Amino acid sequence: MKFIHTADWHLGKLVHGVYMTGHQREALDQFVQLVEEEKPDAVVIAGDLYDRSVPPVEAVNLLDEMLFKLNVELKTPIVSIAGNHDSADRLSFGSSWYRHSHFYLSGKLTDSFKPVHINGVNFYLVPYAEPGAVKELLDDHSIHTHHDAMKALVGRIEEELNPKEPNVFVGHAFVTGGETCESERLLSVGASGSVGAELFAPFSYTALGHLHSPNAIRHETIKYSGSLLKYSFSEAKHRKSVSIIEMEDNGTFTIRERNLTPSKDMRELEGYLDELLDTSFYEKQKCDDYLKVTLLDEGAILDPMGKLRQVYPYVMHLERKADLADQRRNQGFSIGDSQKKKSELDLFEQFYKEMTAQDFTDEKKSVVAGVIETAVKEEMPV
Amino acid sequence: MKFIHTADWHLGKLVHGVYMTGHQREALDQFVQLVEEEKPDAVVIAGDLYDRSVPPVEAVNLLDEMLFKLNVELKTPIVSIAGNHDSADRLSFGSSWYRHSHFYLSGKLTDSFKPVHINGVNFYLVPYAEPGAVKELLDDHSIHTHHDAMKALVGRIEEELNPKEPNVFVGHAFVTGGETCESERLLSVGASGSVGAELFAPFSYTALGHLHSPNAIRHETIKYSGSLLKYSFSEAKHRKSVSIIEMEDNGTFTIRERNLTPSKDMRELEGYLDELLDTSFYEKQKCDDYLKVTLLDEGAILDPMGKLRQVYPYVMHLERKADLADQRRNQGFSIGDSQKKKSELDLFEQFYKEMTAQDFTDEKKSVVAGVIETAVKEEMPV
Repeated sequence: MKFIHTADWHLGKLVHGVYMTGHQREALDQFVQLVEEEKPDAVVIAGDLYDRSVPPVEAVNLLDEMLFKLNVELKTPIVSIAGNHDSADRLSFGSSWYRHSHFYLSGKLTDSFKPVHINGVNFYLVPYAEPGAVKELLDDHSIHTHHDAMKALVGRIEEELNPKEPNVFVGHAFVTGGETCESERLLSVGASGSVGAELFAPFSYTALGHLHSPNAIRHETIKYSGSLLKYSFSEAKHRKSVSIIEMEDNGTFTIRERNLTPSKDMRELEGYLDELLDTSFYEKQKCDDYLKVTLLDEGAILDPMGKLRQVYPYVMHLERKADLADQRRNQGFSIGDSQKKKSELDLFEQFYKEMTAQDFTDEKKSVVAGVIETAVKEEMPV
Repeated sequence: MKFIHTADWHLGKLVHGVYMTGHQREALDQFVQLVEEEKPDAVVIAGDLYDRSVPPVEAVNLLDEMLFKLNVELKTPIVSIAGNHDSADRLSFGSSWYRHSHFYLSGKLTDSFKPVHINGVNFYLVPYAEPGAVKELLDDHSIHTHHDAMKALVGRIEEELNPKEPNVFVGHAFVTGGETCESERLLSVGASGSVGAELFAPFSYTALGHLHSPNAIRHETIKYSGSLLKYSFSEAKHRKSVSIIEMEDNGTFTIRERNLTPSKDMRELEGYLDELLDTSFYEKQKCDDYLKVTLLDEGAILDPMGKLRQVYPYVMHLERKADLADQRRNQGFSIGDSQKKKSELDLFEQFYKEMTAQDFTDEKKSVVAGVIETAVKEEMPV
């Protein structure tokens, strides 16, 4: 049995103010082509199909079109769940109809843990859900963290699971120790929201979404496929791919990766302005990639962005090494610190301390954490 | 052949700040029951399933649930189009899958005018579209108004239509002479956006959405089903219903209406405060209806809303006859004027003239009309 594992398409995403929809179309065209060649028994999409609960119409049209090609035209069964960026309710609309065509979309977590059977493999679909929602659904008041929630969910699945069959878990979670990058949204404000890898021991293969690097975790049976495209410069060195799994009846499998290569890469360039604008340098470059440029020059430069864009039209972000070093010195940060991704709560705490002479107490922290959690969901008021 | 004609569900609508979703569920439960009894060959929903392009998740869940009951559980074919309140793109998502279950949803206008055949009847689905979009789609630069657009669309349909068969047009439009009410949105800023009834002559029956009164037009073959519920006090005297059409092979038909009666009605009450609060009066009333109250008292009254709500908990709107007469006198309006629905553009013009000493020229009018047209679409920026 052969299936392809992908996740984190994030259709409708803006990167540095630029809509990625065109490049997403390009990558998905490659993916459709790849599915046509590989002829898998199923395609697994492990959450974050969209970048936000109300995606732009272009993203809605793109997803509709691509799923139609895969499922209806190529007759490939699809197994998919909602991630933390999707609106479980909005994504679920129509899913009862899709099942007729072997398109299994689990948007909202329910208390039914029946697997989807495809060619002898059982797929357990667990869409992303907040610990509070899982606590309520399972009526289990011992659930507080994402780890607790996942443990309880896997416990329910295990009640019915036949360990002699090949069982695949499809979920959207942050496994402890996984490598993060800047384009993921923290699952839990003020905490990591991670779940222990040991929870997935009952499964032959665990197909995850959430972390954007295909190598986010090194584990024999737990895998992230990584995102469809690079969605931040912290991913500049990633090689984005999808995973092709061929599974035996006993649950053992082989895995290989196939790359997706959009026409515009996302890269970092560092150098002196004169160097970067020198023909002998830039004629060896793919100048129309999306670029983050770090200038090494010190002192004033007139309109560096304007000059750079004459050669590199898609510079998305410009930094100056000198400024950075200054800023860090002034703010008392070490360079190491700035590399770390700060949570919204950390940033707010820092801001609060700078602006007031007061303590950012646990009580205040909890109020702000609640506000942030509501805000990042971007849901419509109802 | 028997089909039921309904339209203008407006799921997710707020009336005077109150979400109608609960009452919409109640009315749709009655509708499902009615379909179960009538066992029609099809249900026709002529647009405005939602009240806005991005409806609240409760509305999304409600529509999904009700369509599933009708189409999958009761196995009733559904023929539906997008109205001016729906987002054609968002509503269309998944429609390619729905067709397998005989759920025909036409969200986006295309240049294919093939009908849906159900039990010997041809249904021509024409979702709502702006004249500009029709002009582009048909590459016909003579199209300027809604009438032009509809004429061109019907023209295309007529090229293929067999007049000897029963042909049903399903559309969302304002037929000239139709009776409007306050909960409809004008189709064209600064103009009526109406289309002539004569255009629909080729059809045995024209199932329309847009106007909210079931008696919006008196015509032998052109019908509005009216909205699911009363959505404004201007509809207080409407009796909301769906139409049941039994059509012969030659296109002749009989029509009857079946009412939908939600537990809370929307009514108007007029009287002196003491009268309305008198037990002998209110014990004959259904006090928990949604009410618009007009008080006849003159002079100051302390907290009339508070007093009224002790007896009538769902007063949505309170007016005082004396204030109204005063306002009208001061603003130089006649009572007749105030009864008429003013368009956003008219209101803006009035405001502009009050605020400035300048003329509201045609050029200014056209700019503001454009802004209003964009704003009322409520679409996300992309």
